[in-house]
Amino acid sequence: MSHNTFGHLFRVTTWGESHGPAIGAVVDGCPPGIRLDLEALQAECDRRKPGQSKFVTQRQEDDRVEVLSGVFEDDATDGLRTTGTPIALMIRNTDQRSKDYGDIRDKYRPGHADWAYDTKYGLRDYRGGGRSSARETASRVAAGAVARQVLNALVPGGVTIRAALVQIGTEAIDRANWDWEEVDRNPFFSPDADSVARFEEYLDGIRLAHSSIGAILEVVAEGVPAGWGAPLYGKLDQDVASALMSINAVKGVEIGAGFEAAELTGIDNADEMRMGNDGPIFLSNHAGGILGGISTGQPIVARLAVKPTSSILTPRRTIDRAGHDVELITKGRHDPCVGIRAVPVVEAMMAITLVDHALRHRGQTGR
Amino acid sequence: MSHNTFGHLFRVTTWGESHGPAIGAVVDGCPPGIRLDLEALQAECDRRKPGQSKFVTQRQEDDRVEVLSGVFEDDATDGLRTTGTPIALMIRNTDQRSKDYGDIRDKYRPGHADWAYDTKYGLRDYRGGGRSSARETASRVAAGAVARQVLNALVPGGVTIRAALVQIGTEAIDRANWDWEEVDRNPFFSPDADSVARFEEYLDGIRLAHSSIGAILEVVAEGVPAGWGAPLYGKLDQDVASALMSINAVKGVEIGAGFEAAELTGIDNADEMRMGNDGPIFLSNHAGGILGGISTGQPIVARLAVKPTSSILTPRRTIDRAGHDVELITKGRHDPCVGIRAVPVVEAMMAITLVDHALRHRGQTGR
Amino acid sequence: MSHNTFGHLFRVTTWGESHGPAIGAVVDGCPPGIRLDLEALQAECDRRKPGQSKFVTQRQEDDRVEVLSGVFEDDATDGLRTTGTPIALMIRNTDQRSKDYGDIRDKYRPGHADWAYDTKYGLRDYRGGGRSSARETASRVAAGAVARQVLNALVPGGVTIRAALVQIGTEAIDRANWDWEEVDRNPFFSPDADSVARFEEYLDGIRLAHSSIGAILEVVAEGVPAGWGAPLYGKLDQDVASALMSINAVKGVEIGAGFEAAELTGIDNADEMRMGNDGPIFLSNHAGGILGGISTGQPIVARLAVKPTSSILTPRRTIDRAGHDVELITKGRHDPCVGIRAVPVVEAMMAITLVDHALRHRGQTGR
Amino acid sequence: MSHNTFGHLFRVTTWGESHGPAIGAVVDGCPPGIRLDLEALQAECDRRKPGQSKFVTQRQEDDRVEVLSGVFEDDATDGLRTTGTPIALMIRNTDQRSKDYGDIRDKYRPGHADWAYDTKYGLRDYRGGGRSSARETASRVAAGAVARQVLNALVPGGVTIRAALVQIGTEAIDRANWDWEEVDRNPFFSPDADSVARFEEYLDGIRLAHSSIGAILEVVAEGVPAGWGAPLYGKLDQDVASALMSINAVKGVEIGAGFEAAELTGIDNADEMRMGNDGPIFLSNHAGGILGGISTGQPIVARLAVKPTSSILTPRRTIDRAGHDVELITKGRHDPCVGIRAVPVVEAMMAITLVDHALRHRGQTGR
Repeated sequence: MSHNTFGHLFRVTTWGESHGPAIGAVVDGCPPGIRLDLEALQAECDRRKPGQSKFVTQRQEDDRVEVLSGVFEDDATDGLRTTGTPIALMIRNTDQRSKDYGDIRDKYRPGHADWAYDTKYGLRDYRGGGRSSARETASRVAAGAVARQVLNALVPGGVTIRAALVQIGTEAIDRANWDWEEVDRNPFFSPDADSVARFEEYLDGIRLAHSSIGAILEVVAEGVPAGWGAPLYGKLDQDVASALMSINAVKGVEIGAGFEAAELTGIDNADEMRMGNDGPIFLSNHAGGILGGISTGQPIVARLAVKPTSSILTPRRTIDRAGHDVELITKGRHDPCVGIRAVPVVEAMMAITLVDHALRHRGQTGR
Repeated sequence: MSHNTFGHLFRVTTWGESHGPAIGAVVDGCPPGIRLDLEALQAECDRRKPGQSKFVTQRQEDDRVEVLSGVFEDDATDGLRTTGTPIALMIRNTDQRSKDYGDIRDKYRPGHADWAYDTKYGLRDYRGGGRSSARETASRVAAGAVARQVLNALVPGGVTIRAALVQIGTEAIDRANWDWEEVDRNPFFSPDADSVARFEEYLDGIRLAHSSIGAILEVVAEGVPAGWGAPLYGKLDQDVASALMSINAVKGVEIGAGFEAAELTGIDNADEMRMGNDGPIFLSNHAGGILGGISTGQPIVARLAVKPTSSILTPRRTIDRAGHDVELITKGRHDPCVGIRAVPVVEAMMAITLVDHALRHRGQTGR
Repeated sequence: MSHNTFGHLFRVTTWGESHGPAIGAVVDGCPPGIRLDLEALQAECDRRKPGQSKFVTQRQEDDRVEVLSGVFEDDATDGLRTTGTPIALMIRNTDQRSKDYGDIRDKYRPGHADWAYDTKYGLRDYRGGGRSSARETASRVAAGAVARQVLNALVPGGVTIRAALVQIGTEAIDRANWDWEEVDRNPFFSPDADSVARFEEYLDGIRLAHSSIGAILEVVAEGVPAGWGAPLYGKLDQDVASALMSINAVKGVEIGAGFEAAELTGIDNADEMRMGNDGPIFLSNHAGGILGGISTGQPIVARLAVKPTSSILTPRRTIDRAGHDVELITKGRHDPCVGIRAVPVVEAMMAITLVDHALRHRGQTGR
Repeated sequence: MSHNTFGHLFRVTTWGESHGPAIGAVVDGCPPGIRLDLEALQAECDRRKPGQSKFVTQRQEDDRVEVLSGVFEDDATDGLRTTGTPIALMIRNTDQRSKDYGDIRDKYRPGHADWAYDTKYGLRDYRGGGRSSARETASRVAAGAVARQVLNALVPGGVTIRAALVQIGTEAIDRANWDWEEVDRNPFFSPDADSVARFEEYLDGIRLAHSSIGAILEVVAEGVPAGWGAPLYGKLDQDVASALMSINAVKGVEIGAGFEAAELTGIDNADEMRMGNDGPIFLSNHAGGILGGISTGQPIVARLAVKPTSSILTPRRTIDRAGHDVELITKGRHDPCVGIRAVPVVEAMMAITLVDHALRHRGQTGR
């Protein structure tokens, strides 16, 4: 059991604090012989990198990923390949801006884990949130980029994992405009080109009000074969929920129809089947690609709710270490909507979860 | 890693199929020396028992729990106490009604895991859903009843875990009427006495239409001390989500404000703090008692969406084993709304999750 | 993590106490579709059964194994087959002879865990050793019998696992006489027919002296393909050592040349290789079939030392619960040499370890 | 489940290859608030460092340990302390001597895992043994140095863990001369000053014969309180055996009397007890400090056999990748007796095992 590892057979252990010398991940259980494209890996990390628009933190980090182990290249291996040993990934922290931490050192930031953390551990690295900082998600994205390449090697035809932001605060996209190509063209990772100007204006208002705002994201994995998962405590949807809920600031997760399923009748909710040319076809996907904990071959669809950034420039009431009532303004370079940069993180966690289940399936069935 | 176990230090492994001789659970990791009240344990199981109203399955099961190991009584121990060894619980299946399984043996029930299951395992015990049957939840409730007693022994003052049904289909309770006492007085586990007649009428309509309906449940744990959980992959909310999503038919989980948090600003979402006489006080609980993955001492609040029962008397299109298009009516004694009897199961999973975290906290901190 | 489970993907969790109503095991992670021969399973258990000669305990137990879940038979499955769900095995305790436990309840038996156990747990089921009783090994043998059948289904050509007793006290077998067929023909599980009379006389002397004696066992697994294991912390030899050391009374384990390897030179210890008609051939097997933690395809060979039974009729000095110096004679029906009946248990643990590694290999390599 | 992690609650995951840019470890589950002395940590690593005498490899490595996360210092914490988050340790490889790997790339070294490794993974980093290299043990020693400090913080009075080499080939120490102080004064880690000249002469002979030799080591942990471990599959001795067997080249492990216990009678083997002033006293320690899998408070004593270095300058018969019969001389800078430098590694693994059990004990008992 670990509190810093995700996965069972494909295991990602992350380490590092926001203002320490580096952060990183050890990817253990990666199958051998898989070609690893380091440029594609870096490209994933660049998507999550801070400072790329005015709607995200202005912290400047290169986020160059060093691969320290677990890969090997000689002429017999035809390019760089995984060896089946742990892949150690490291990202140096470079922009630990010199600053006075006095305020957040002694005052507990509301909405953050500060007080609970101190209660648990008796001390904490308060610089930039320490271990609780969203900076940790850079390690997830790097590990997820490995996972994505492994998944494509394991599954004939490959698995396509894509996430998008579908709502900021009260502003939702128009699903009729959904275009996956659009997601990487705008700073919001929105699949709806028409939403962009609206999101900009809305988010500017939030920033000017010295506040922040929540968001809803959707992630879809296409190409997952039927049969991954298990009927009870290793349900695929259970592990997707766990993966997404492990991301900072996530407060809700739903699969397929999700909370709307509560209002559906059994007649409407049934994903009826017909025999197609290449196997069974489902006539709808209320299940989100998972029935009884096991993948059906349909796209896996999940949504998650991200709460607003807790660090805001508006004073909030709190207490300090000495037990006094105080007020706190959280200065710094914070994302006004942490949901935005969560998109690559969500894809990473989905990729890690799916590789883990691909390997577990082999172990379960002996095939 | 196990696909039939929940928990890490307090581990519940369930076994058994709907129409086999028995089902059961092994509760491993239970601390020693805890008094176990077997009558209270049986009473928990009786709450979940089928056949207690016309709104649930008419299967008749006594659900008598046998405790086969892990407890001991002699004058030195002052009553029956846990010994720290595995507690084996067994429930005999008694009402495996003789019937013709032909239809569900050869036809895949839409909305069920049948097809995915066959694809994965290559064979299945189709009798009553086999391992996928909701009957498995009887084992969870028995194990959860142990967990509840352990939790009360470990936490001074005890932990109160209560769940309720808050919505059936489009019919929601009025939260102004919330009364925990009411929950065990009506067949819906509703906390709102005024909702009962409305739910009855609504559900009668659903049954007469040969359909079924989804539901939303809420669970609240009071008395959990601050400090349980971990900042990243052992987040308490992550494990609560995993626990609830492991229950059959659950399609969504949210903590605290949940999906509503997406629409909140950082100003409104902040759970501000003041110093009270007995420690810090939070002025709101949007976080649902968990910040940064760690409990805050506030009530832990979660909600979950349950999809409608897939087994209905209305014919649905599907395929059979031979790959032919067919129609299927699922006869049998099915709950029209599986959300109803999920209430004791939800409490059980919360109790198991919390005991596990109570023990993990000791292991993490060395205290 | 569990203290009552062995294995990672093929997991055996045992439960039960010597004088409780029953003992049992849950075998989780068993691949689906494997034919299970229940008579062969029972036959394994009968080999370990007490009361079969004067050299073992006279406790009378039928040791009938009930299979409560995880198997299914219909015409489509061609006989009873595993379903991939947990296999629950239960053995009723029948000969819990009514007796006065007063002495071992209050006095700590030297050589047993009594005092350490009480110190750890604060209480214990002292009847017949409770959870620490060698009776638990009946569950291992039942689970190991499942493992053996799974192994033969997974590995083309099958895997043959055989153990034998090679030394009792100072009396060793003559390895020149080794005959596996002989093992089940004598009450000592000795592979050397000539040793039997010698062992009888020696052991009679031990019994008459109101003492007991240790033993050395050897186990050989033939047919294990090359490639199982891992280079570091999932070494196959590490897990074999762990499996054997988990058996009651075992104090030492060695693989291949074992402790003799300390006296070998690198020149002599090298298992040289030549190319044979069906692949590489090793010219010796000092490694015991495992190099760098990975199986080589040679027979896996391990030996283990079992200490003498601690329960003897000769008075030994000890203390009681109240902290007084006392003397204790341990009456009861004890094996004079627990090493003898350990033979089927050793085979069972080897089988469980190997199935686990067979499945882990699939998960590791993705093949 | 992991093949590169040791421990359950205190978890050490190592990564890195002999000739990659670096090796390292992530220490997860370290309790918070423990003062960490980095100089003591480095001093441990220096003990294992290569090149310190003519009896070990001449590879030159600084083995400077970088601590990248998991520690924090501010005036409130009174020196550098652990934070409860993962401690990432990294050691750069500096002496990857440019050399021609042609021979070991294509020929399988007898006694090494080369052939089994290729069979398993389909490729391998053959440079210096890659992941299988004993270089990995540097990470263990660094992690073990953390473990030692944690153990001393958790256990009042501290735990003293010391190992020594007690036999090289056929040359054993005289136990009458045992002096722990002597161990760090000679290049053999021998506790017997009189043995040193003898070992030198013996080992010189081995080297001149272009051979190598095995060894026996002993490790003793004093100060472990009674009650750690578990009766069955989490036996403390089982985990000690697993820890020691996970070290490269170890072929046998014994606890307390070990294999000699096979020849002892129950009368002689009983560790009798008397009541002392500070609690129970054992009159002997055949058990090696562990009874029924649980620590007794006596010194924990284990011994292990290390096989001779497989890399020798004498030609040995083997095969190559193409399946041809060949001969191989393994050139390079190899330890003539790998057992010597194993001493700090053995201490490290014992320390890691004991911290893990200290934390598990808290989780098991809820205390």
